[in-house]
Amino acid sequence: MTITPSSIFNDVEKIRENGPLVHNITNYVVMNTTANALLALGASPVMAHAVPEVKEMAGIAGALVINIGTLSDAWIEAMFMAAKKAEQRQIPIVIDPVGVGATQYRTKTARELIQSSGPSIIRGNGSEIMALCEQDIVTKGVDSTSASDQAIDSAKALAREFDCTVCITGKTDYIVSQETIIQVKNGHAMMPRVTGLGCTATAICGAFAAVNKNFEKAAAHAMAIMGIAGEMAAKNAQGPGTLQVNFIDALYQLSETHIKKLFKE
Amino acid sequence: MTITPSSIFNDVEKIRENGPLVHNITNYVVMNTTANALLALGASPVMAHAVPEVKEMAGIAGALVINIGTLSDAWIEAMFMAAKKAEQRQIPIVIDPVGVGATQYRTKTARELIQSSGPSIIRGNGSEIMALCEQDIVTKGVDSTSASDQAIDSAKALAREFDCTVCITGKTDYIVSQETIIQVKNGHAMMPRVTGLGCTATAICGAFAAVNKNFEKAAAHAMAIMGIAGEMAAKNAQGPGTLQVNFIDALYQLSETHIKKLFKE
Amino acid sequence: MTITPSSIFNDVEKIRENGPLVHNITNYVVMNTTANALLALGASPVMAHAVPEVKEMAGIAGALVINIGTLSDAWIEAMFMAAKKAEQRQIPIVIDPVGVGATQYRTKTARELIQSSGPSIIRGNGSEIMALCEQDIVTKGVDSTSASDQAIDSAKALAREFDCTVCITGKTDYIVSQETIIQVKNGHAMMPRVTGLGCTATAICGAFAAVNKNFEKAAAHAMAIMGIAGEMAAKNAQGPGTLQVNFIDALYQLSETHIKKLFKE
Repeated sequence: MTITPSSIFNDVEKIRENGPLVHNITNYVVMNTTANALLALGASPVMAHAVPEVKEMAGIAGALVINIGTLSDAWIEAMFMAAKKAEQRQIPIVIDPVGVGATQYRTKTARELIQSSGPSIIRGNGSEIMALCEQDIVTKGVDSTSASDQAIDSAKALAREFDCTVCITGKTDYIVSQETIIQVKNGHAMMPRVTGLGCTATAICGAFAAVNKNFEKAAAHAMAIMGIAGEMAAKNAQGPGTLQVNFIDALYQLSETHIKKLFKE
Repeated sequence: MTITPSSIFNDVEKIRENGPLVHNITNYVVMNTTANALLALGASPVMAHAVPEVKEMAGIAGALVINIGTLSDAWIEAMFMAAKKAEQRQIPIVIDPVGVGATQYRTKTARELIQSSGPSIIRGNGSEIMALCEQDIVTKGVDSTSASDQAIDSAKALAREFDCTVCITGKTDYIVSQETIIQVKNGHAMMPRVTGLGCTATAICGAFAAVNKNFEKAAAHAMAIMGIAGEMAAKNAQGPGTLQVNFIDALYQLSETHIKKLFKE
Repeated sequence: MTITPSSIFNDVEKIRENGPLVHNITNYVVMNTTANALLALGASPVMAHAVPEVKEMAGIAGALVINIGTLSDAWIEAMFMAAKKAEQRQIPIVIDPVGVGATQYRTKTARELIQSSGPSIIRGNGSEIMALCEQDIVTKGVDSTSASDQAIDSAKALAREFDCTVCITGKTDYIVSQETIIQVKNGHAMMPRVTGLGCTATAICGAFAAVNKNFEKAAAHAMAIMGIAGEMAAKNAQGPGTLQVNFIDALYQLSETHIKKLFKE
């Protein structure tokens, strides 16, 4: 299975035309920046986490994105409720197990959410994907301490067990499904110095999954877009501050010409 | 009733001189950006939502801004407490019914807040203002699906029922009171692609209402400033990322000359 | 005791080499911007506030930063738990008493946290440091109404009582310990117009304290870096929007040459 500039841009156009509603239950750190990324790309983000409303919100959404970055008990309850509704409606569920392995609370929550909800896509860095699989992996906070390729076996195991696509991001991104692995080599070395670009990658997966039911391709397209926008942004960036601003601009500007010129598989 | 560049700038100068304390109980997505907008304009924002302190904070504020963007039960309780205190002190209350119509939770909360607190100003997009009035309007998340002029009748009904100013933002902004309607035509097409600029408009209404007890004019001045700063920001923007940054700069730079040159009623 | 460009840069290099994990329990307004500042400087931020996980997170961190900017009861419980763990592990604890004096809730919480945790560093603006000491100081929200030098006596009293370093930020920063006072005169007049730069100063203290156990020097180095990065950022800033973006870039770019050229003690 491969992805091409045309297949990538085809999904971008669908997002821009349809403006899919992406329901995010995400962490406090990235709410603003992921909402901006989704808006810049052409999707319609909504953030809602209260138990009394998440079912209804997931009930009108085109995709549900769950991110455990700043977890607490009330939010966990809402995550499970929203996921159940999304599952019933068969809309895509994308899970970001932020910091899994750093505390048992995160590890337990991430695993239970994945087990109960049957996600379409799981996205994490190398450490996180490994920590989802192996009891003895301890991560350091939310930044990866492992290269993305070290996590391929864990991703394969997860893809098999939960019949889903697992997306490991890093220098090379690996989009792993039961049968195949797609590599995406776009991106820029300064991107990990911007907080929440991993979370943004997850939210963007939600937008692509809302318009493309082939979740492996949707995730690969999302990762290509992240990397290409990152490269466009880095061109005139003096540091992570301007990179973050330019990145949002790049998602907005992104044309088929940009993708053709920059895409590296 | 009309507003003029002089009446607009007169309020801006009062905000810059007095630095009114604007107490915000607002959503997680926009806390940072609305605080920055208020600071750049010259006001002094404070965010406080805990039941044990909101009365005291509303007790020293010049205006109270309540925004239901990311609602939960504990916050609702604080919203009602703060609103009661603000009402007792007769400081302006500005309400932003974000996403009303998308879930019953939001619709119920927004209506009850408005009924119990007697707001000075309600600000929303077309869909939200209509959903406040009519039981059968269903909105799509937090982005408007209706043009602002479609909501004028709803705004009139709300203005009459609650003796307040209703501000519908969109391509043209309508500031609706019991007797009159002020139109503001400033703004830029890229502004809806920045998350939370509607919420920022609401917060800015708070700053203007803190220095001008004619709430219809205060709201119209606030909308004019939003639109003018948006146009200034769009001039050198490459997308919504730079637009957001430039917008904050524009609020800071804003002079009477800018307003005279750009204001369109 | 003095600090020099070399002593400052020496700590910067240690942060860049070691990437210390800084555990923040901080307010919603600044989570994104303080995480970005820490990342840009070279540290590894993590935000975690849930009672079930804060002990574990503080258990792997190099420093704990507690900021009471948007307080609520559940968070207070977590703050005390994390502080206890940090104290047991003897990692530095940095406390930011945001808005202390504005409400009794903040005043009570800040004082109890300081009393029970034995912080390494307390950082606040003039009003806040005075309000920590004197029962009758009432602050106006979260912005300072007093010059930093007015708070020196209060800072000395706090330093003595809690055997810690107290950092008063303002036009001149005073880093006050039991024996000495270090002054840092870097900074730019536009910085108070960016929300959360005070909170960022506190978070940055956490990164420096994680690599330098002389907390007076660590705090002074942190303040020097804040001011120098602020001056670098202001150079091409058109307002607080670009200042904030450039500030993150400056933390990333910062070299010994910059420090030598700009440092004013």
